[in-house]
Amino acid sequence: MTVQGLPMAVPARDLPARVRIHEVGARDGLQNEKATVPTEIKAEFIRRLADAGLTTIEATSFVHPRWVPQLADAEQLFPLVGDLPVALPVLVPNERGLDRALALGARRVAVFASATESFAKANLNRTVDEALAMFEPVVARAKAADVHVRGYLSMCFGDPWEGPVPLEQVVRVCRALLDMGCDELSLGDTIGVATPGHVLRLLTALNEQGVPTSTLGVHFHDTYGQALANTLAALQHGVTTVDASAGGLGGCPYAKSATGNLATEDLVWMLRGLGIDTGVDLDRLTATSEWMAARLGRPSPSRTVRALSHEDSEYSEDSHKER
Amino acid sequence: MTVQGLPMAVPARDLPARVRIHEVGARDGLQNEKATVPTEIKAEFIRRLADAGLTTIEATSFVHPRWVPQLADAEQLFPLVGDLPVALPVLVPNERGLDRALALGARRVAVFASATESFAKANLNRTVDEALAMFEPVVARAKAADVHVRGYLSMCFGDPWEGPVPLEQVVRVCRALLDMGCDELSLGDTIGVATPGHVLRLLTALNEQGVPTSTLGVHFHDTYGQALANTLAALQHGVTTVDASAGGLGGCPYAKSATGNLATEDLVWMLRGLGIDTGVDLDRLTATSEWMAARLGRPSPSRTVRALSHEDSEYSEDSHKER
Repeated sequence: MTVQGLPMAVPARDLPARVRIHEVGARDGLQNEKATVPTEIKAEFIRRLADAGLTTIEATSFVHPRWVPQLADAEQLFPLVGDLPVALPVLVPNERGLDRALALGARRVAVFASATESFAKANLNRTVDEALAMFEPVVARAKAADVHVRGYLSMCFGDPWEGPVPLEQVVRVCRALLDMGCDELSLGDTIGVATPGHVLRLLTALNEQGVPTSTLGVHFHDTYGQALANTLAALQHGVTTVDASAGGLGGCPYAKSATGNLATEDLVWMLRGLGIDTGVDLDRLTATSEWMAARLGRPSPSRTVRALSHEDSEYSEDSHKER
Repeated sequence: MTVQGLPMAVPARDLPARVRIHEVGARDGLQNEKATVPTEIKAEFIRRLADAGLTTIEATSFVHPRWVPQLADAEQLFPLVGDLPVALPVLVPNERGLDRALALGARRVAVFASATESFAKANLNRTVDEALAMFEPVVARAKAADVHVRGYLSMCFGDPWEGPVPLEQVVRVCRALLDMGCDELSLGDTIGVATPGHVLRLLTALNEQGVPTSTLGVHFHDTYGQALANTLAALQHGVTTVDASAGGLGGCPYAKSATGNLATEDLVWMLRGLGIDTGVDLDRLTATSEWMAARLGRPSPSRTVRALSHEDSEYSEDSHKER
């Protein structure tokens, strides 16, 4: 449990008053889990996340089951949570996926593009432009149905095959996604190599090409421990949408040591300390991540979850703990 | 091993050109280890840290062996490393400790004060003022011997018994340490609860009371994952001395889940990305932390060490790794 009065709320200058957390644990966090998580557990996870105060919870992906077997139950899962009073975006890789999502009443969808050719090839078996061409009718039809579209862009900072990613390359794909009608973008540091100066430079480069900060979300991975420092830099630039994963669930299969997404709890701790409103109940969220960790059979990688873990939790003790 | 060109070096405005890392792994990192680390291993650890480019390496503590059994070999250790071409500060809790350190030729010492009564009582069995009174002759005699004195101040942001720590309390003890002759201070977030706004407000409050930023170092713990974001905030304020522990060794026995000091590797990754010179060879440092992890029998908690770990390392695989 949190200690009374900690963290002390001390606002810093020039930061946004509110931040919207785009919670990705149920989709991005779970998609690489080997053991199949039962559909009812996923639904319960999403319900608990909503109950903890998260308002945007990415629910699942309407991808072909062969690609992501863990999310093969999208059709069964979505109706179980569709009535929750939160935004429930779902990933749609192509028109077939969009059809499935729309048939179930999804009001928010996301497409998943790459800033690099290597990852486009590895992840989508397409060139960057072929992938964009595939998304174009998806976005057009979603917009025609008045559905909100998020464009994910992966490998915005570094790529495991190509090394540093040129800014122009990222800017070009961002522009293409916005031009085809995406409502917002999520700039992904898929292998976690970004640092704050790089983040600021990319955001500035996007602004210079006419992309307003209000359309930009950030999606940092904690592979090198940089996610929260990068988030601070993005907030200082005016970003108000931050992706995070409850308990730090998830990882990138292409990063050698897959410490994955920024943990929502670590983010909420910082935002609470900065006096930035998120609407999230940290104790409730931590309890949810502990509950999910027990379902998955291993402790959460989130530092905050470990620090706040309940005495009676199966995973309240960090296995590396010294005393 | 690092990927060529990553992190991409992108300087950010208004950051220092150079940062001095005060490496605390050999002292702060090891002091809470239960199993005794052989003196020669400690010496080898310090030699490897120096070889990796660290220039300030806190070596040991001349504390009574009953208090910190792990560092009972200070007299044997110090002469083994005393000739290294680096600064080797040592902790001295009192005049007896100072005598022992001076007898061995130590040129830099540190005292360890507390901003809170509860921790002063727990750690030193004294009130804050009694502890300051104990340090006064230590600092005076060290300065008379032309020895550099660092003043550690613990619990600057939160205290496990007292909750949030009032700024005035921290400022008062800082002033007392400087007034008695300390050359620099290290502001410790012993339980890792600080967030960036709090860090900036404390630094500003100290400046307002006549304490120049150049005398201030920061010492963050990663218990809630905040250490690097707090470091970024401190750098933005002009701080150029940052404490860190190779491999993230160490922890605070009073924080429930003892994820400890900011890992030097995570810090170096960020500084390298920001184009800030530290002189540290990250691959060599990571190899040193892997080597030490194998000696201690468990993987490093540093995200960067895990990400960069060598294929042949005993601990190259994160135990929580998904694939």
